[in-house]
Amino acid sequence: MVSIGSIREAAALLQGRIIRTPLVYSPTFSELTGAEVYLKLETMQKAGSFKVRGAANRILSQLDSIGAGGVIAASAGNHAQGVAVAAGIAGIPATIVMPEWVSPGKQEAAAGYGARVILKGSSLEESITHAMSLAESGAMTFIHPFDDESVIAGQGTIGLEILEDLPDTETIVIPVGGGGLIAGIATAVKADHPAVRVIGVQASACPSAVAARREGKPLIVESFPTIADGIRVTRTGDHTWPAIRDLVDGIVLVNDEQIVAAISALLERKKVLAEGAGAAPLAALLSTNIPLRPGEKVVAVISGGNLDAFLLERVIRKGLFDAGKILRCTIEIEEGARALPALLSLIAREGATISRVEQERGSPDLPLHLNRVTLEMELRGPEHKNRVLRMLRENDYQVKKFSQKGGK
Amino acid sequence: MVSIGSIREAAALLQGRIIRTPLVYSPTFSELTGAEVYLKLETMQKAGSFKVRGAANRILSQLDSIGAGGVIAASAGNHAQGVAVAAGIAGIPATIVMPEWVSPGKQEAAAGYGARVILKGSSLEESITHAMSLAESGAMTFIHPFDDESVIAGQGTIGLEILEDLPDTETIVIPVGGGGLIAGIATAVKADHPAVRVIGVQASACPSAVAARREGKPLIVESFPTIADGIRVTRTGDHTWPAIRDLVDGIVLVNDEQIVAAISALLERKKVLAEGAGAAPLAALLSTNIPLRPGEKVVAVISGGNLDAFLLERVIRKGLFDAGKILRCTIEIEEGARALPALLSLIAREGATISRVEQERGSPDLPLHLNRVTLEMELRGPEHKNRVLRMLRENDYQVKKFSQKGGK
Repeated sequence: MVSIGSIREAAALLQGRIIRTPLVYSPTFSELTGAEVYLKLETMQKAGSFKVRGAANRILSQLDSIGAGGVIAASAGNHAQGVAVAAGIAGIPATIVMPEWVSPGKQEAAAGYGARVILKGSSLEESITHAMSLAESGAMTFIHPFDDESVIAGQGTIGLEILEDLPDTETIVIPVGGGGLIAGIATAVKADHPAVRVIGVQASACPSAVAARREGKPLIVESFPTIADGIRVTRTGDHTWPAIRDLVDGIVLVNDEQIVAAISALLERKKVLAEGAGAAPLAALLSTNIPLRPGEKVVAVISGGNLDAFLLERVIRKGLFDAGKILRCTIEIEEGARALPALLSLIAREGATISRVEQERGSPDLPLHLNRVTLEMELRGPEHKNRVLRMLRENDYQVKKFSQKGGK
Repeated sequence: MVSIGSIREAAALLQGRIIRTPLVYSPTFSELTGAEVYLKLETMQKAGSFKVRGAANRILSQLDSIGAGGVIAASAGNHAQGVAVAAGIAGIPATIVMPEWVSPGKQEAAAGYGARVILKGSSLEESITHAMSLAESGAMTFIHPFDDESVIAGQGTIGLEILEDLPDTETIVIPVGGGGLIAGIATAVKADHPAVRVIGVQASACPSAVAARREGKPLIVESFPTIADGIRVTRTGDHTWPAIRDLVDGIVLVNDEQIVAAISALLERKKVLAEGAGAAPLAALLSTNIPLRPGEKVVAVISGGNLDAFLLERVIRKGLFDAGKILRCTIEIEEGARALPALLSLIAREGATISRVEQERGSPDLPLHLNRVTLEMELRGPEHKNRVLRMLRENDYQVKKFSQKGGK
C-alpha cells in the first residue's frame, strides 16, 4: 500500500514542475448545499487534468530505470496527455497508443505535447495490450493510468495541497474510475487527519468501485456509455483497492443528467469548464447524495476539464433549453404574403430573438389555406417564454411546442 | 487621487467577505508569448467579476452615511451584480436601474442576488439619470461604477493580491473601460514597486482612455458594438484620469476577432470562461501588441466571466469552424433512392459525424437528374477535413464549401 512518505516525496519532486492548482470557495454551491463548498481545480493543471501528477511522479522517481526508448502508455483520454506532458517535463520520449476510434482532438492533444501517437486497437484493452507488447520489444517503460504505486502517490499530492490551503477540511469528494486519484488522496489525508471524510463518486453507468466494496474484492462490472468517460473503468485496480476498501468512507453514484447539470452549473456560476468525470463530485453534492452538516467544510475535486467542444456545445444548448431560454415550436399561419412577417414582427415585439425559421408549404395534414412554420427563439427565461406563448395564443395562433424540460 | 493607504484599508475591510481569487500560471500562454504568463482570475469572484470589490468597499467604508433606503446603481452589466452582492454583504437593500433592452439573464442575475430591479431608460445614460433622481427622492446612496475614490480603492486590492502571490511581477495587463480597475491596480502596485509596468487594454471599438491620453484630458469618443461590452465606456472618469495619465505605462487596442480568439483559447487551454472585457488582456498578449522580454513575468487580469450563454455558444461554434472541425458544404447527387444513403455512408466511413442534412429537390439551377444536399459535418481538424473533401472529389461528387477560415 502507498505510504504518506512516498506522497510527500512525490510533492517534493513535483514542486515547480506542475501547477499548484487553486482551491476556490463557491458561495453559490455553499448556499445550494448548506455546507461550505470549495473546489480544487485540477482543470487548471498542465494538460487539463490531474493525470500529469501521477505520470510525472512515476517517471521522475524512477528515471534511472527508464531506457532510451522512454515511456509508453495506452489511453483514450487524459492519461495520454498526462504522460505526454510528464515525459516532456523529464525530457524523455513518450509513445501513446490510442484506440482507433479515439475522440476528436485527443490525438492532436497528445501529439501537441510532443508524444508519438500510434492508433491501434478497437478497444482500450486492445490498445493496452499493444502498448505492453511494444514496451517489451522497444525497451520502453509502460506507465499504467492508475494501478501503480508511484502513480497513486503522485495523485495523492492533491490531498496535501488541500490540507495546506484548508487545514480544517472535513469532507473531500473525489471522482473514482480505476481508483488512483481517490487512493492517493485518501492516503495523504487520513495519515494525519483520520477524521476527514473521503467520499468517492462514480457514474451509475460504471459502478466498479461500489461493486468491489460490496463484494469485498475488485471485479469486472458491466458498463454503459456516460458523459463521464474519464471514470468509465470497469474494474478497480489491485494497487488502488486496499485504500478504497480501508480508507474511503463511502462511494455514491450520480447519473448523466446530474453530471450534465453540474457541468452547466460550474460553467455558469464559477466560470469553470469541467469534463464529466470532473463535475461528478459537484453532481453528488448538488443532488444531495451525500449527507452534509450545515456549514461543513467540503472540498470537491474537479479533476479535469477536457470536455470535447462539440459536447460542450450540446451541454450549453441543453442548459438553455432546460432553463426555458430556448423555445422550439411549430405555428400554423394563413397562406399569403403578409402572414409570416406579421408573425415574426409580433414575436420580435415581445423581445424574443428568432434564431431559426422554417416555412413548410402544403403540409398534407393541414387545410389548404394554412402553412406550418417551425421556429426557434431565444428568450430570457421561463417567464418570458410563457409571455410569448400567451401572446401568440391571444392572437389566435395554433402553437405546438417541442417537448422540453423546465418552465413548461 | 486614491492613496495606497486607502487601498490597504479596503483590503482589510474586504478580507473574508469577497473571494481571494487565484493567480494561476499558464504554460500554454507562456509558450505562445515567450514570457511567463499568469492569470488573475476575477472570473471566480463573487458575482463573476471584480466589480464587487469596489462596490463593497464603497458601501462598507461609508456605511454610516447610507440611509434606510440603501444603495442604488445603474448598470447593464457586472456593476449591477456587483452592487447587489455588495449590498447583501453589508446587509442593506439595493436597487438597480437597468436599460429596458438589458441583455437576457442580467435582470435575473441582479434580482437573484437580492436587488430590486427597475427597467428604465432606452440607454445606459438614461438609466443613470433615472437612478440619480431616484437616489435623491428616495434617500438612497448612488454607487458609481468607476468614478469614485472608494470604488477605485476597492478594485486596487487586486494589485495587492497579485504582488503577494507573485512579488517579482514585472508587467500587469488590465482591461480599461471607465478606468476604475486600472487606476486602482496602478496605484496599489506603483506605490512600492514603481518599476512594474502597468498596461491597459481597450477594445478598438471604444478607445476612450487612448483618446484621453492623446488629448491630455478625458473626452467622449464615438463607440461601436463590441463583444467586450463591459469596457465600452465612452469617457474616462474624472477620478480615474490622474492615475491613467500618470501611472499607466501604455494602453493598447484589440479588436473583436482577437478578443473572440482569446475567449476560445482561455476556455480550451485553461478551462476558464471569460467575458469579452475579461479576455481582452490575453488578446493583447497573444496578438503581440505588447512587447515582452523572454521570460518576463506578466499577469493578465481576467476581470470577469459573465458571458451570455447564447454568445458563448456562438463563440464555441466559431472556434470549431476556424479550427477546421466543422465543414458545411453542398454536394450534388443523382436523383434516385440510393444516392443519399450512398453519400452518407461514404462520409461515415471516413469517421466524420454528420450533424445536419438537408436535401433539396428540383433546384432550378441544376439539371433535372441532380439534387443538391446541404451537409454539416463534425471533423477532427483541418487534416481530417481535407481527407474527407479529397475522398468526395475522388468519388466524383461536386462539392461546394461554405466560406470559412482555417484549414482551407
